[in-house]
Amino acid sequence: MKVTIAQLNYHVGNFEKNRDLIFDSIRKARNEKSDLIIFSELCIPGYPPLDLLDREDFIQKCIQTVDEIAGECRDISALIGSPTLNTNPEGKKLFNSALLLSEGRIVFTANKGLLPTYDIFDEYRHFEPERKFAVCNFRGLRLAVTICEDLWDEQTFDNQFEKKRLYSISPMEELAKQNPDFIINISASPFSWSKTESKTDIFRNKAKKYGIPVISVNQIGGNTELIFEGASLMINSRGEIVKRLPHFEEALHTFDIDEIIQGRNKEEEAGPDPVLLIYKALVTGIRDYFRKSGLKKGIIGLSGGIDSAVCLCLTAEALGPENTRALLMPSRYSSEHSVSDAVELAERLKIEYDIISIEKPFRAFEKDLEPLFSGKEKDVTEENIQARIRAVFLMAVSNKLGYILINTSNKSEAAVGYGTLYGDMAGGLSVLGDVYKTDVYRLADFINRNNEIIPRNIIKKLPTAELRPGQLDSDSLPDYGILDPILYQYIDLQKPAERITGKGIEPAIVAGVIKMINSNEYKRYQSPPVLRVSSKSFGDGRRMPLVAKY
Amino acid sequence: MKVTIAQLNYHVGNFEKNRDLIFDSIRKARNEKSDLIIFSELCIPGYPPLDLLDREDFIQKCIQTVDEIAGECRDISALIGSPTLNTNPEGKKLFNSALLLSEGRIVFTANKGLLPTYDIFDEYRHFEPERKFAVCNFRGLRLAVTICEDLWDEQTFDNQFEKKRLYSISPMEELAKQNPDFIINISASPFSWSKTESKTDIFRNKAKKYGIPVISVNQIGGNTELIFEGASLMINSRGEIVKRLPHFEEALHTFDIDEIIQGRNKEEEAGPDPVLLIYKALVTGIRDYFRKSGLKKGIIGLSGGIDSAVCLCLTAEALGPENTRALLMPSRYSSEHSVSDAVELAERLKIEYDIISIEKPFRAFEKDLEPLFSGKEKDVTEENIQARIRAVFLMAVSNKLGYILINTSNKSEAAVGYGTLYGDMAGGLSVLGDVYKTDVYRLADFINRNNEIIPRNIIKKLPTAELRPGQLDSDSLPDYGILDPILYQYIDLQKPAERITGKGIEPAIVAGVIKMINSNEYKRYQSPPVLRVSSKSFGDGRRMPLVAKY
Repeated sequence: MKVTIAQLNYHVGNFEKNRDLIFDSIRKARNEKSDLIIFSELCIPGYPPLDLLDREDFIQKCIQTVDEIAGECRDISALIGSPTLNTNPEGKKLFNSALLLSEGRIVFTANKGLLPTYDIFDEYRHFEPERKFAVCNFRGLRLAVTICEDLWDEQTFDNQFEKKRLYSISPMEELAKQNPDFIINISASPFSWSKTESKTDIFRNKAKKYGIPVISVNQIGGNTELIFEGASLMINSRGEIVKRLPHFEEALHTFDIDEIIQGRNKEEEAGPDPVLLIYKALVTGIRDYFRKSGLKKGIIGLSGGIDSAVCLCLTAEALGPENTRALLMPSRYSSEHSVSDAVELAERLKIEYDIISIEKPFRAFEKDLEPLFSGKEKDVTEENIQARIRAVFLMAVSNKLGYILINTSNKSEAAVGYGTLYGDMAGGLSVLGDVYKTDVYRLADFINRNNEIIPRNIIKKLPTAELRPGQLDSDSLPDYGILDPILYQYIDLQKPAERITGKGIEPAIVAGVIKMINSNEYKRYQSPPVLRVSSKSFGDGRRMPLVAKY
Repeated sequence: MKVTIAQLNYHVGNFEKNRDLIFDSIRKARNEKSDLIIFSELCIPGYPPLDLLDREDFIQKCIQTVDEIAGECRDISALIGSPTLNTNPEGKKLFNSALLLSEGRIVFTANKGLLPTYDIFDEYRHFEPERKFAVCNFRGLRLAVTICEDLWDEQTFDNQFEKKRLYSISPMEELAKQNPDFIINISASPFSWSKTESKTDIFRNKAKKYGIPVISVNQIGGNTELIFEGASLMINSRGEIVKRLPHFEEALHTFDIDEIIQGRNKEEEAGPDPVLLIYKALVTGIRDYFRKSGLKKGIIGLSGGIDSAVCLCLTAEALGPENTRALLMPSRYSSEHSVSDAVELAERLKIEYDIISIEKPFRAFEKDLEPLFSGKEKDVTEENIQARIRAVFLMAVSNKLGYILINTSNKSEAAVGYGTLYGDMAGGLSVLGDVYKTDVYRLADFINRNNEIIPRNIIKKLPTAELRPGQLDSDSLPDYGILDPILYQYIDLQKPAERITGKGIEPAIVAGVIKMINSNEYKRYQSPPVLRVSSKSFGDGRRMPLVAKY
């Protein structure tokens, strides 16, 4: 028996595109004489559909599309993911289902039992959890069809306050009693650099525990903040990886079922470098944000600092240098090398750039505000005005010439509120908002791994916003080597203050940093969507009250 | 036996304030010789605590505070709401609990069984649902202690696609088998103008169905977007309202238990006017957003249009005219009456205002951008530049003089994207973001009910952004009398396009409006928090993918 794994890039709500992608894959699998092609979780609407699932018209579209695909499944069967209607009188209106299509119709349905409702996941918002589980008989094989979290009945969270068993049922335990020959897991599991190994381990452990092979099928591509890595797996009954499909690339892989039954460990010696994966994730995230929005061109305010430099490289890689543009906007406080470093980078990348001084509008604002501000000292107000003037320029070019503004704030700045709302915090998409400053340097080194693309001067200079004479980030913030470990422990691991430790970390510094984090929720609330690469990113995965006192 | 209802205004995460408020109420109830004082759901941490519940330190604070309050309960008992730890090995780590404190300790615990996970609610994100329910014996009475949604096992949603029975269990059905004498419901139920009657009906129907009285205790006040109306209820066993506590005001009410047993229908003839309730809700929302953030003063860009006029009146009512400021920023396209109408309003309200023309910075931007824009026609870019210059001025005054910018966009504009990101969409809090334009007029009429505060000219003029010569809203949008019913049916009721009907509504208009709504998710993503007064507000209650094609 031959099976095809379809690791594809779906677009939320784009039923025609998703259907055509599935049709095309079925055709290819048929050509390879495959008996069964397996697609990923909720491939029909794309993942995550969020509250589009609340719309009756959206669900009707899903049902129609499943019908159309079923019509193509006559000499081949397909396992697909779609919402289906819960026909019971009570409960949420939908199930998150895996449907086996064969002979032109749905011949088997498995509904998801474990609905993740933490971090970015809201599945219980829309779906009723299934409580009964049955294996699927397919050409003499008994398949345990599970949907993503169904195999995650036991897991370790970064936040040690969480229980390891989040659910009181285990779908796989129920299925195991029915003597399955294979575990199939269809998922839409987003990338997080800290989770890649533990995800693989879950599949390996389940294969070992039940002594049967696992086929896991994940999607790839970006959908707004979430980036999916693919890396679909074939694991033999001893828990060894027989094959892993590529990260962040579409792939169709057809194999004989014996290949996995008899297959041996073919795992690469070491797992992929996390910095490489983050780089690929961000490029995928940018590319798909643009492509799926029907956009082509990105613009970046290039300051001569490392954040905008790394963003420019990532954007040029994602959209092509011909679709990337830079605007340099020196102020009266900009150092000369800021402009020359930025120019050097733009020229190396062959990116069109313009230089506009912000002096004239800055003077106009200063002058107009004089009567209101008379007798007041200069303060952060004037710094913010400059940052906002830059946003006005960037958005004007964006509006007139059809570019989308790329936001260049990093996670450390976003965490402590070191940025200007409607100024440098503006943009359609935050590329580095889930990357701490120290990791931005790692990305820069990765970009320069073969030859110097980002001028060394940009990497070596001390971080500064250049909004007043001689300003340095370290005037207002602890050194990033101290700040970032505090942020990681407080935000990503959710540790209580007294358990936050490390070199140079003292309780007073921790308290000061936590105060900055908590008092800047209001800024993050209005931030652009952030490409998520960790397991705790700002945005929908971290929902904090704004007026709380904590 | 005497019972006290405590309808109070809690602050999320402000354990000291919440504790002191509770202490003070216990003291007062004790003075009235009350046997039992009832507080509302999750009064210890404040509602909604959101992901603060993920933090171990936050939960420890809750547990400590409950202990402290228990220490005060010796000659009086208190029913309070707090998260408690789920000690079972599996499941979510917390329960949403009602705790009866007596003799210095917790003598009874009821955990919430029905966890709303729709719209703005995310309770299953943090809490394990209880599956066993027992009545509480208190001085010879058997109390059915329920927490908010526990009584909502059957409800009608605005979206008719939802099931009426969202849960497969009914806590009250289980409790009814144990012959309770009273139903107590502690809640944190946010205001929505369309839900006030159906909420009351749920309590009345439960009282009638089980033939026993209902005491419902709700909180009041604003916590970021959510505004709680209080309106706690005493309902007799025939389902008649014996007493309703005030809307949007703190209240302590002590009564003898016989009062509710023998009490007769004292319900006001007609329910309160929805416009009055929306007005009070918005004033409460503004006041608490400021007070709970430790802020005092608000600033508004006053255009001479109706939205900013209504916002100014609401803000002056909430913060006092002495804490409210206006900035008038005419452009080369502003009509003369825009300034004079705005001045008249500010003077009537005794509000400090300044006038700054945006001409100088506008010219500076135009000039600096000339080289990049040569050969291009004027378009929306120049309109956006003007709107963004205004935001720079407003934020500069905000930063320098310590004001928070009030955003004045209404729900109709937010829906169709008729606004400029980082321009008129800026602000710390959106006051009218859940109020359709036609309802903004109703609010204006309400404000003017006794005497003309908002100049009639502001109400009568045709809506315009005044960003190009002779511009009117109706150039780009259908008449608000047609637009708003379409928006309401699509957004609030979530009707499929083909079922959207009404006077002057045609399929082509509907299609055009839906396209505008869907293609502007990216703008709303970066909007300030919106005071919620409907049952489907923009923000956390409506989670839409940005790059979807739908």
